[in-house]
Amino acid sequence: MNLNIILLEASLELVPKEIINHPAVVKNAKRRGKKPEETLLDISLHYHAMKNLKDNYKRGRPDIVHQALLVMLTDPTIKGNFFIHTVQSKIIRVNPNMRPPKNYMRFIGLMEQLLKYGKIPINGGETLMEVTNLTLEDVLSKYNLILLSEKGEKISPEEICRSNENLIIGIGAFPHGDFSEKILKLAKKIYSISKFPLETQQVICRIFSACNAILGWP
Amino acid sequence: MNLNIILLEASLELVPKEIINHPAVVKNAKRRGKKPEETLLDISLHYHAMKNLKDNYKRGRPDIVHQALLVMLTDPTIKGNFFIHTVQSKIIRVNPNMRPPKNYMRFIGLMEQLLKYGKIPINGGETLMEVTNLTLEDVLSKYNLILLSEKGEKISPEEICRSNENLIIGIGAFPHGDFSEKILKLAKKIYSISKFPLETQQVICRIFSACNAILGWP
Repeated sequence: MNLNIILLEASLELVPKEIINHPAVVKNAKRRGKKPEETLLDISLHYHAMKNLKDNYKRGRPDIVHQALLVMLTDPTIKGNFFIHTVQSKIIRVNPNMRPPKNYMRFIGLMEQLLKYGKIPINGGETLMEVTNLTLEDVLSKYNLILLSEKGEKISPEEICRSNENLIIGIGAFPHGDFSEKILKLAKKIYSISKFPLETQQVICRIFSACNAILGWP
Repeated sequence: MNLNIILLEASLELVPKEIINHPAVVKNAKRRGKKPEETLLDISLHYHAMKNLKDNYKRGRPDIVHQALLVMLTDPTIKGNFFIHTVQSKIIRVNPNMRPPKNYMRFIGLMEQLLKYGKIPINGGETLMEVTNLTLEDVLSKYNLILLSEKGEKISPEEICRSNENLIIGIGAFPHGDFSEKILKLAKKIYSISKFPLETQQVICRIFSACNAILGWP
């Protein structure tokens, strides 16, 4: 089965310039033998450094992307076009054949390479992830965006799987708050699959499972 | 809905005595300000050190338990009795109200405390995880063990949810190989929910989703 997915406003970025001299940032970078601006922003390391960053409640959670990719890229039957839209509006294309590192620290190292060099692997071979020069509007010009949000109209995950329009499912990959106004305006439909707030990986888990149920649990 | 789950032969242990003097183990422990024997065995750090360990193909993957607990303990509707049986046959009781740390390094720190002190939190408050003095047989004396294995009889996840016997679902939490003979003998039934090998978290995701589907996707 084919499902196109875009993770939206994903908390995935290198440490921004404003805080590269913060002691917590410098210490972590030094320990890992990297320059501060080549390390990923991570609230579990940079909580104090992030205090004055704009929109900080949406930032510094690469673990959300990690969990989401682990679910999306290990399903044996669900394939499709996968994108990550970051909180800084970068569009990353994800090769559906990619197998993300299970280990978080290895994932972090890989994302640091991706954001520094623009693609992984750096030296040739099949590209697994790539920072494109597309805008969100470019990506959405090819699909109808179905946004999943607590505030949307209730729908079952199976109905999403059965929809045969040219869809891309938009799932928030940030820890708190709502989608930006811009994204809400780009959505063709806004749906909710649960009355409870669900985590990014849970949303993907429920949709992929529902699609697998329709396929007779292959 | 109520579901009892036991993660079986989970790759969760402190670095064993045989390798506490290995340079990779010492280096990681020193960097984290801990004694080698108080750090968790992790193949991403200890690959070379683990080469001669018995059953090494089943060991050093605490990330599997982390992923599994994140799925089990964030579902808004599925509750039950949750246990972890480790590859060294320790039985850990998991409080269903626990919210595991999302960040892997924080989870590692917490598991190191659990295995060193026998419970978390260490200093009073509601116990979230506890190393019991139970044997696997003690736990299974109260339930019928349904083992999920690629080699089992095909069943749909919904059928598992609908079963109203006094079940505990046994799910392997090790990276490679099959269950030990001992565990296979303890199983009342051995079922498979997919023709593909699934990862631990995927198995839980499919079962929890199927149970939520039966409940009308609350």
